[in-house]
Amino acid sequence: MSSGDSLQGLIEQVNAFADERDWRQFHSPKNLTMALAVEAAELLEIFQWVDSNDSLVLTDAQRVASEHEVADILLYLLRFCEMTGIDLIAAAQDKIKLNAQKYPVELAKGKATRSIDL
Amino acid sequence: MSSGDSLQGLIEQVNAFADERDWRQFHSPKNLTMALAVEAAELLEIFQWVDSNDSLVLTDAQRVASEHEVADILLYLLRFCEMTGIDLIAAAQDKIKLNAQKYPVELAKGKATRSIDL
Amino acid sequence: MSSGDSLQGLIEQVNAFADERDWRQFHSPKNLTMALAVEAAELLEIFQWVDSNDSLVLTDAQRVASEHEVADILLYLLRFCEMTGIDLIAAAQDKIKLNAQKYPVELAKGKATRSIDL
Amino acid sequence: MSSGDSLQGLIEQVNAFADERDWRQFHSPKNLTMALAVEAAELLEIFQWVDSNDSLVLTDAQRVASEHEVADILLYLLRFCEMTGIDLIAAAQDKIKLNAQKYPVELAKGKATRSIDL
Repeated sequence: MSSGDSLQGLIEQVNAFADERDWRQFHSPKNLTMALAVEAAELLEIFQWVDSNDSLVLTDAQRVASEHEVADILLYLLRFCEMTGIDLIAAAQDKIKLNAQKYPVELAKGKATRSIDL
Repeated sequence: MSSGDSLQGLIEQVNAFADERDWRQFHSPKNLTMALAVEAAELLEIFQWVDSNDSLVLTDAQRVASEHEVADILLYLLRFCEMTGIDLIAAAQDKIKLNAQKYPVELAKGKATRSIDL
Repeated sequence: MSSGDSLQGLIEQVNAFADERDWRQFHSPKNLTMALAVEAAELLEIFQWVDSNDSLVLTDAQRVASEHEVADILLYLLRFCEMTGIDLIAAAQDKIKLNAQKYPVELAKGKATRSIDL
Repeated sequence: MSSGDSLQGLIEQVNAFADERDWRQFHSPKNLTMALAVEAAELLEIFQWVDSNDSLVLTDAQRVASEHEVADILLYLLRFCEMTGIDLIAAAQDKIKLNAQKYPVELAKGKATRSIDL
Protein backbone atom coordinates (compact mmCIF):
# COMPACT_ATOMS: atom_id res chain seq x y z
CA MET A 1 0.00 0.00 0.00
CA SER A 2 1.45 3.35 -0.97
CA SER A 3 2.18 5.62 1.96
CA GLY A 4 0.03 8.25 0.26
CA ASP A 5 -3.13 6.22 0.53
CA SER A 6 -1.99 5.25 4.00
CA LEU A 7 -1.40 8.79 5.31
CA GLN A 8 -4.80 9.89 4.03
CA GLY A 9 -6.20 6.63 5.34
CA LEU A 10 -4.68 7.30 8.75
CA ILE A 11 -6.13 10.81 8.82
CA GLU A 12 -9.57 9.39 8.11
CA GLN A 13 -9.17 6.64 10.69
CA VAL A 14 -7.99 9.05 13.42
CA ASN A 15 -10.95 11.35 12.79
CA ALA A 16 -13.48 8.51 12.67
CA PHE A 17 -11.99 7.07 15.88
CA ALA A 18 -12.41 10.37 17.71
CA ASP A 19 -15.89 11.05 16.35
CA GLU A 20 -17.21 7.57 17.26
CA ARG A 21 -16.10 8.24 20.84
CA ASP A 22 -17.37 11.80 20.92
CA TRP A 23 -13.89 13.06 21.74
CA ARG A 24 -13.93 16.23 19.65
CA GLN A 25 -14.91 18.11 22.81
CA PHE A 26 -11.48 17.34 24.34
CA HIS A 27 -9.49 17.99 21.17
CA SER A 28 -8.88 21.71 21.26
CA PRO A 29 -5.56 22.56 19.62
CA LYS A 30 -4.23 23.51 23.07
CA ASN A 31 -5.10 20.13 24.55
CA LEU A 32 -3.72 18.30 21.54
CA THR A 33 -0.33 19.99 21.90
CA MET A 34 -0.23 18.73 25.48
CA ALA A 35 -1.10 15.17 24.44
CA LEU A 36 1.54 15.29 21.71
CA ALA A 37 4.22 16.56 24.12
CA VAL A 38 3.32 13.75 26.53
CA GLU A 39 3.88 11.14 23.81
CA ALA A 40 7.16 12.77 22.75
CA ALA A 41 8.33 12.43 26.36
CA GLU A 42 7.31 8.76 26.42
CA LEU A 43 9.59 8.22 23.43
CA LEU A 44 12.35 10.13 25.24
CA GLU A 45 11.88 7.94 28.32
CA ILE A 46 12.87 4.79 26.43
CA PHE A 47 16.38 6.21 25.98
CA GLN A 48 16.91 8.36 29.07
CA TRP A 49 19.53 6.07 30.66
CA VAL A 50 20.75 4.54 27.40
CA ASP A 51 24.14 5.57 26.08
CA SER A 52 23.94 7.51 22.81
CA ASN A 53 26.12 4.97 20.98
CA ASP A 54 24.17 2.05 22.40
CA SER A 55 20.98 3.61 21.10
CA LEU A 56 22.23 3.09 17.53
CA VAL A 57 21.03 -0.53 17.78
CA LEU A 58 17.64 -0.91 19.41
CA THR A 59 16.86 -3.89 21.60
CA ASP A 60 13.60 -5.67 20.76
CA ALA A 61 11.90 -4.06 23.74
CA GLN A 62 13.14 -0.59 22.76
CA ARG A 63 11.90 -1.18 19.22
CA VAL A 64 8.40 -2.24 20.27
CA ALA A 65 8.12 0.66 22.72
CA SER A 66 9.42 3.12 20.12
CA GLU A 67 6.90 1.88 17.53
CA HIS A 68 4.05 2.59 19.95
CA GLU A 69 5.30 6.06 20.76
CA VAL A 70 6.11 7.23 17.21
CA ALA A 71 2.64 6.04 16.27
CA ASP A 72 1.03 8.04 19.10
CA ILE A 73 3.05 11.13 18.13
CA LEU A 74 1.96 10.87 14.49
CA LEU A 75 -1.69 10.27 15.36
CA TYR A 76 -1.85 13.36 17.62
CA LEU A 77 0.06 15.37 15.01
CA LEU A 78 -2.51 14.41 12.37
CA ARG A 79 -5.37 15.22 14.75
CA PHE A 80 -3.84 18.62 15.61
CA CYS A 81 -3.52 19.40 11.89
CA GLU A 82 -7.13 18.30 11.34
CA MET A 83 -8.43 20.58 14.11
CA THR A 84 -6.37 23.56 12.87
CA GLY A 85 -6.68 22.98 9.14
CA ILE A 86 -2.93 22.79 8.70
CA ASP A 87 -1.56 20.87 5.70
CA LEU A 88 1.16 18.84 7.39
CA ILE A 89 2.99 17.69 4.26
CA ALA A 90 3.02 21.18 2.75
CA ALA A 91 4.25 22.65 6.05
CA ALA A 92 7.07 20.11 6.17
CA GLN A 93 8.05 20.78 2.56
CA ASP A 94 8.16 24.52 3.24
CA LYS A 95 10.22 23.98 6.39
CA ILE A 96 12.87 21.94 4.56
CA LYS A 97 13.26 24.79 2.07
CA LEU A 98 13.56 27.27 4.95
CA ASN A 99 16.09 25.05 6.75
CA ALA A 100 18.21 24.86 3.57
CA GLN A 101 18.52 28.65 3.68
CA LYS A 102 19.18 28.76 7.45
CA TYR A 103 21.77 26.00 7.31
CA PRO A 104 23.64 26.21 3.98
CA VAL A 105 25.89 23.20 3.48
CA GLU A 106 29.09 25.24 3.37
CA LEU A 107 28.40 26.70 6.83
CA ALA A 108 26.60 23.80 8.50
CA LYS A 109 28.64 20.82 7.36
CA GLY A 110 29.75 18.73 10.32
CA LYS A 111 28.35 21.19 12.86
CA ALA A 112 25.37 20.48 15.09
CA THR A 113 22.58 23.05 14.93
CA ARG A 114 21.35 24.56 18.17
CA SER A 115 24.53 23.67 19.93
CA ILE A 116 25.73 26.07 22.58
CA ASP A 117 29.01 27.40 21.28
CA LEU A 118 31.76 28.95 23.36
CA MET B 1 0.82 15.81 -5.59
CA SER B 2 -0.43 12.80 -3.65
CA SER B 3 0.62 12.75 -0.02
CA GLY B 4 2.11 9.33 -0.64
CA ASP B 5 4.69 10.63 -3.06
CA SER B 6 5.12 13.55 -0.69
CA LEU B 7 5.76 11.48 2.46
CA GLN B 8 8.30 9.35 0.65
CA GLY B 9 9.65 12.53 -0.93
CA LEU B 10 9.98 14.12 2.49
CA ILE B 11 11.82 11.07 3.83
CA GLU B 12 14.29 11.31 0.97
CA GLN B 13 14.72 15.06 1.40
CA VAL B 14 15.31 14.79 5.17
CA ASN B 15 17.95 12.12 4.65
CA ALA B 16 19.68 13.98 1.82
CA PHE B 17 19.63 17.18 3.91
CA ALA B 18 21.34 15.44 6.84
CA ASP B 19 23.87 13.60 4.66
CA GLU B 20 24.91 16.75 2.74
CA ARG B 21 25.70 18.37 6.08
CA ASP B 22 27.39 15.32 7.55
CA TRP B 23 24.90 15.28 10.44
CA ARG B 24 24.44 11.53 10.76
CA GLN B 25 27.06 11.62 13.53
CA PHE B 26 24.65 13.62 15.72
CA HIS B 27 21.55 11.64 14.81
CA SER B 28 21.63 8.74 17.24
CA PRO B 29 18.08 7.64 18.11
CA LYS B 30 18.65 9.00 21.64
CA ASN B 31 19.58 12.45 20.37
CA LEU B 32 16.72 12.47 17.90
CA THR B 33 14.17 11.80 20.66
CA MET B 34 15.55 14.85 22.46
CA ALA B 35 15.28 17.04 19.35
CA LEU B 36 11.73 15.82 18.77
CA ALA B 37 10.69 16.53 22.36
CA VAL B 38 12.16 20.04 22.05
CA GLU B 39 10.01 20.72 18.97
CA ALA B 40 6.91 19.31 20.66
CA ALA B 41 7.50 21.78 23.50
CA GLU B 42 7.86 24.65 21.02
CA LEU B 43 4.40 23.77 19.70
CA LEU B 44 3.12 23.65 23.30
CA GLU B 45 4.61 27.09 23.98
CA ILE B 46 2.40 28.75 21.37
CA PHE B 47 -0.67 27.87 23.45
CA GLN B 48 0.61 27.93 27.05
CA TRP B 49 -1.30 31.07 28.06
CA VAL B 50 -4.09 30.69 25.53
CA ASP B 51 -7.50 29.60 26.75
CA SER B 52 -8.54 26.18 25.47
CA ASN B 53 -11.67 27.57 23.80
CA ASP B 54 -9.76 30.44 22.26
CA SER B 55 -7.32 27.94 20.77
CA LEU B 56 -10.14 26.58 18.59
CA VAL B 57 -9.52 29.47 16.18
CA LEU B 58 -5.87 30.19 15.54
CA THR B 59 -4.63 33.71 15.01
CA ASP B 60 -2.44 34.19 11.93
CA ALA B 61 0.66 34.30 14.11
CA GLN B 62 -0.33 31.12 15.94
CA ARG B 63 -0.98 29.42 12.61
CA VAL B 64 2.41 30.33 11.12
CA ALA B 65 4.23 29.30 14.30
CA SER B 66 2.27 26.04 14.48
CA GLU B 67 3.08 25.22 10.85
CA HIS B 68 6.80 25.55 11.60
CA GLU B 69 6.60 23.37 14.67
CA VAL B 70 4.43 20.56 13.26
CA ALA B 71 6.86 20.46 10.34
CA ASP B 72 9.86 20.18 12.67
CA ILE B 73 8.14 17.43 14.66
CA LEU B 74 7.36 15.44 11.50
CA LEU B 75 10.87 15.85 10.09
CA TYR B 76 12.52 14.59 13.29
CA LEU B 77 9.96 11.77 13.51
CA LEU B 78 10.85 10.70 9.95
CA ARG B 79 14.57 10.92 10.74
CA PHE B 80 14.14 8.85 13.94
CA CYS B 81 12.27 6.18 11.95
CA GLU B 82 15.00 6.23 9.30
CA MET B 83 17.75 5.72 11.88
CA THR B 84 15.84 2.92 13.65
CA GLY B 85 14.31 1.26 10.61
CA ILE B 86 10.80 1.75 11.93
CA ASP B 87 7.93 1.84 9.41
CA LEU B 88 6.01 4.86 10.69
CA ILE B 89 2.80 4.32 8.74
CA ALA B 90 2.62 0.62 9.67
CA ALA B 91 3.28 1.46 13.33
CA ALA B 92 0.46 4.03 13.27
CA GLN B 93 -1.94 1.61 11.63
CA ASP B 94 -1.15 -1.04 14.24
CA LYS B 95 -1.59 1.49 17.06
CA ILE B 96 -5.05 2.52 15.86
CA LYS B 97 -6.10 -1.13 15.94
CA LEU B 98 -4.66 -1.49 19.45
CA ASN B 99 -6.39 1.70 20.60
CA ALA B 100 -9.73 0.40 19.28
CA GLN B 101 -9.37 -2.58 21.62
CA LYS B 102 -8.19 -0.48 24.58
CA TYR B 103 -10.95 2.11 24.13
CA PRO B 104 -14.06 0.35 22.81
CA VAL B 105 -16.73 2.86 21.83
CA GLU B 106 -19.27 1.63 24.37
CA LEU B 107 -16.86 2.27 27.25
CA ALA B 108 -14.95 5.30 25.94
CA LYS B 109 -17.73 7.40 24.45
CA GLY B 110 -17.65 10.92 25.81
CA LYS B 111 -14.88 10.13 28.29
CA ALA B 112 -11.35 11.52 28.06
CA THR B 113 -8.62 8.91 28.11
CA ARG B 114 -5.81 9.34 30.62
CA SER B 115 -7.95 11.49 32.81
CA ILE B 116 -7.38 11.24 36.55
CA ASP B 117 -10.59 9.86 37.96
CA LEU B 118 -11.77 10.20 41.52
CA MET C 1 11.14 21.78 59.86
CA SER C 2 12.38 24.88 58.06
CA SER C 3 12.46 24.53 54.31
CA GLY C 4 16.12 25.54 54.41
CA ASP C 5 17.17 22.49 56.37
CA SER C 6 14.77 20.51 54.20
CA LEU C 7 16.16 21.64 50.83
CA GLN C 8 19.71 20.88 51.95
CA GLY C 9 18.37 17.70 53.52
CA LEU C 10 16.72 16.74 50.24
CA ILE C 11 19.94 17.37 48.32
CA GLU C 12 21.80 15.08 50.67
CA GLN C 13 19.10 12.42 50.52
CA VAL C 14 18.97 12.46 46.69
CA ASN C 15 22.74 12.08 46.47
CA ALA C 16 22.89 9.33 49.09
CA PHE C 17 20.02 7.53 47.33
CA ALA C 18 21.86 7.57 44.00
CA ASP C 19 25.22 6.60 45.50
CA GLU C 20 23.80 3.64 47.45
CA ARG C 21 22.41 2.31 44.18
CA ASP C 22 25.53 3.06 42.17
CA TRP C 23 23.49 5.25 39.81
CA ARG C 24 26.04 8.00 39.24
CA GLN C 25 27.05 6.20 36.05
CA PHE C 26 23.64 6.97 34.52
CA HIS C 27 23.43 10.54 35.82
CA SER C 28 25.26 12.53 33.17
CA PRO C 29 23.77 16.02 32.88
CA LYS C 30 22.43 15.04 29.44
CA ASN C 31 20.59 12.03 30.81
CA LEU C 32 19.26 13.99 33.77
CA THR C 33 17.72 16.62 31.48
CA MET C 34 15.87 13.79 29.73
CA ALA C 35 14.61 12.32 33.01
CA LEU C 36 13.47 15.77 34.15
CA ALA C 37 11.62 16.43 30.88
CA VAL C 38 9.89 13.06 31.22
CA GLU C 39 8.62 13.99 34.69
CA ALA C 40 7.49 17.43 33.49
CA ALA C 41 5.44 15.66 30.82
CA GLU C 42 3.90 13.35 33.43
CA LEU C 43 2.70 16.43 35.29
CA LEU C 44 1.34 17.82 31.99
CA GLU C 45 -0.51 14.55 31.36
CA ILE C 46 -2.66 14.96 34.46
CA PHE C 47 -4.25 18.05 32.91
CA GLN C 48 -4.17 17.36 29.18
CA TRP C 49 -7.95 16.91 28.81
CA VAL C 50 -8.89 19.08 31.78
CA ASP C 51 -10.38 22.49 31.12
CA SER C 52 -8.14 25.35 32.25
CA ASN C 53 -10.81 26.73 34.59
CA ASP C 54 -11.58 23.30 36.01
CA SER C 55 -7.89 22.89 36.78
CA LEU C 56 -8.15 25.72 39.33
CA VAL C 57 -9.55 23.20 41.82
CA LEU C 58 -7.74 19.89 41.84
CA THR C 59 -9.60 16.66 42.43
CA ASP C 60 -8.07 14.38 45.08
CA ALA C 61 -6.64 12.15 42.39
CA GLN C 62 -5.15 15.08 40.48
CA ARG C 63 -3.61 16.36 43.73
CA VAL C 64 -1.97 13.04 44.62
CA ALA C 65 -0.66 12.58 41.10
CA SER C 66 0.61 16.17 40.99
CA GLU C 67 2.41 15.74 44.32
CA HIS C 68 4.30 12.74 42.92
CA GLU C 69 5.29 14.56 39.77
CA VAL C 70 6.38 17.88 41.31
CA ALA C 71 8.48 15.81 43.69
CA ASP C 72 10.11 13.90 40.83
CA ILE C 73 10.80 17.14 38.97
CA LEU C 74 12.43 18.72 42.02
CA LEU C 75 14.53 15.63 42.78
CA TYR C 76 15.91 15.46 39.24
CA LEU C 77 16.47 19.23 39.26
CA LEU C 78 18.51 18.92 42.47
CA ARG C 79 20.46 15.99 41.03
CA PHE C 80 21.20 17.91 37.80
CA CYS C 81 22.47 20.85 39.85
CA GLU C 82 24.60 18.49 41.95
CA MET C 83 26.20 16.94 38.86
CA THR C 84 26.84 20.34 37.24
CA GLY C 85 27.76 22.30 40.36
CA ILE C 86 24.98 24.82 39.76
CA ASP C 87 23.61 26.72 42.76
CA LEU C 88 19.88 26.39 42.13
CA ILE C 89 18.69 29.04 44.59
CA ALA C 90 21.24 31.59 43.39
CA ALA C 91 20.32 30.88 39.75
CA ALA C 92 16.64 31.40 40.54
CA GLN C 93 17.32 34.64 42.43
CA ASP C 94 19.35 35.95 39.48
CA LYS C 95 16.64 34.94 37.03
CA ILE C 96 13.93 36.83 38.91
CA LYS C 97 16.07 39.96 38.73
CA LEU C 98 16.59 39.40 35.00
CA ASN C 99 12.87 38.81 34.47
CA ALA C 100 12.06 42.06 36.27
CA GLN C 101 14.13 43.88 33.64
CA LYS C 102 12.69 41.90 30.72
CA TYR C 103 9.10 42.35 31.89
CA PRO C 104 8.77 45.74 33.60
CA VAL C 105 5.39 46.11 35.31
CA GLU C 106 4.31 49.06 33.16
CA LEU C 107 4.77 47.05 29.96
CA ALA C 108 3.85 43.57 31.15
CA LYS C 109 0.81 44.22 33.31
CA GLY C 110 -2.10 42.05 32.27
CA LYS C 111 -0.26 40.66 29.26
CA ALA C 112 0.91 37.08 28.93
CA THR C 113 4.58 36.63 28.14
CA ARG C 114 5.55 34.41 25.22
CA SER C 115 2.15 34.84 23.67
CA ILE C 116 2.02 34.89 19.91
CA ASP C 117 0.81 38.35 19.01
CA LEU C 118 -0.74 39.39 15.70
CA MET D 1 21.91 33.13 53.26
CA SER D 2 20.41 29.81 54.24
CA SER D 3 18.57 28.07 51.46
CA GLY D 4 15.54 27.86 53.75
CA ASP D 5 15.10 31.60 53.90
CA SER D 6 15.91 31.66 50.20
CA LEU D 7 13.31 29.10 49.13
CA GLN D 8 10.61 30.89 51.11
CA GLY D 9 12.02 34.16 49.80
CA LEU D 10 11.81 32.86 46.23
CA ILE D 11 8.21 31.76 46.74
CA GLU D 12 7.31 35.24 47.96
CA GLN D 13 9.20 36.91 45.11
CA VAL D 14 7.55 34.72 42.44
CA ASN D 15 4.11 35.48 43.80
CA ALA D 16 4.74 39.21 44.14
CA PHE D 17 6.18 39.27 40.60
CA ALA D 18 3.05 37.65 39.18
CA ASP D 19 0.65 39.77 41.23
CA GLU D 20 2.34 43.07 40.27
CA ARG D 21 1.84 42.13 36.62
CA ASP D 22 -1.71 40.86 37.09
CA TRP D 23 -0.67 37.44 35.74
CA ARG D 24 -2.73 35.27 38.06
CA GLN D 25 -5.37 35.13 35.33
CA PHE D 26 -2.97 33.13 33.13
CA HIS D 27 -1.65 30.90 35.92
CA SER D 28 -4.15 28.08 36.04
CA PRO D 29 -2.46 24.85 37.10
CA LYS D 30 -3.02 23.52 33.56
CA ASN D 31 -1.24 26.46 31.99
CA LEU D 32 1.58 26.32 34.51
CA THR D 33 2.29 22.66 33.69
CA MET D 34 2.65 23.72 30.05
CA ALA D 35 5.06 26.55 30.91
CA LEU D 36 7.10 24.19 33.09
CA ALA D 37 7.32 21.54 30.36
CA VAL D 38 8.47 24.23 27.91
CA GLU D 39 11.32 25.21 30.25
CA ALA D 40 12.28 21.57 30.82
CA ALA D 41 12.58 21.21 27.03
CA GLU D 42 14.77 24.32 26.83
CA LEU D 43 17.14 22.66 29.30
CA LEU D 44 17.03 19.48 27.17
CA GLU D 45 17.85 21.50 24.05
CA ILE D 46 21.23 22.58 25.44
CA PHE D 47 22.37 18.96 25.35
CA GLN D 48 20.47 17.43 22.44
CA TRP D 49 23.54 17.02 20.18
CA VAL D 50 26.07 16.77 23.01
CA ASP D 51 27.58 13.39 23.77
CA SER D 52 26.59 12.03 27.19
CA ASN D 53 30.22 11.81 28.35
CA ASP D 54 31.01 15.28 27.05
CA SER D 55 28.08 16.62 29.05
CA LEU D 56 29.91 15.68 32.27
CA VAL D 57 31.90 18.90 31.92
CA LEU D 58 29.81 21.89 30.93
CA THR D 59 31.22 24.58 28.68
CA ASP D 60 30.75 28.14 29.95
CA ALA D 61 27.93 28.68 27.48
CA GLN D 62 26.20 25.45 28.51
CA ARG D 63 26.54 26.45 32.15
CA VAL D 64 25.02 29.92 31.68
CA ALA D 65 22.17 28.52 29.60
CA SER D 66 21.56 25.73 32.12
CA GLU D 67 21.44 28.21 35.00
CA HIS D 68 18.70 30.16 33.24
CA GLU D 69 16.66 27.07 32.52
CA VAL D 70 16.92 25.39 35.96
CA ALA D 71 15.87 28.73 37.41
CA ASP D 72 12.83 28.94 35.12
CA ILE D 73 11.87 25.36 35.96
CA LEU D 74 12.08 26.02 39.70
CA LEU D 75 10.14 29.30 39.46
CA TYR D 76 7.25 27.66 37.56
CA LEU D 77 7.37 24.69 39.94
CA LEU D 78 7.01 27.03 42.92
CA ARG D 79 4.19 28.93 41.18
CA PHE D 80 2.35 25.67 40.36
CA CYS D 81 2.64 24.60 44.02
CA GLU D 82 1.38 28.02 45.13
CA MET D 83 -1.67 27.80 42.87
CA THR D 84 -2.47 24.23 43.95
CA GLY D 85 -1.53 24.52 47.62
CA ILE D 86 1.00 21.71 47.32
CA ASP D 87 3.87 21.61 49.82
CA LEU D 88 6.78 20.96 47.51
CA ILE D 89 9.37 20.00 50.11
CA ALA D 90 6.98 17.63 51.91
CA ALA D 91 5.99 16.04 48.57
CA ALA D 92 9.66 15.50 47.72
CA GLN D 93 10.41 14.01 51.13
CA ASP D 94 7.48 11.61 50.76
CA LYS D 95 8.58 10.65 47.26
CA ILE D 96 12.11 9.75 48.37
CA LYS D 97 10.60 7.41 50.98
CA LEU D 98 8.35 5.87 48.32
CA ASN D 99 11.28 5.49 45.92
CA ALA D 100 13.31 3.72 48.61
CA GLN D 101 10.57 1.07 48.77
CA LYS D 102 10.19 0.82 44.98
CA TYR D 103 13.94 0.59 44.39
CA PRO D 104 15.51 -1.28 47.32
CA VAL D 105 19.32 -1.15 47.13
CA GLU D 106 19.73 -4.91 46.82
CA LEU D 107 17.53 -5.00 43.70
CA ALA D 108 18.35 -1.63 42.15
CA LYS D 109 22.11 -1.42 42.60
CA GLY D 110 23.84 -0.66 39.32
CA LYS D 111 20.63 -0.93 37.32
CA ALA D 112 18.93 2.01 35.63
CA THR D 113 15.28 2.51 36.51
CA ARG D 114 12.77 2.83 33.68
CA SER D 115 15.09 1.04 31.33
CA ILE D 116 13.47 -1.13 28.70
CA ASP D 117 14.59 -4.66 29.45
CA LEU D 118 14.62 -7.57 27.01
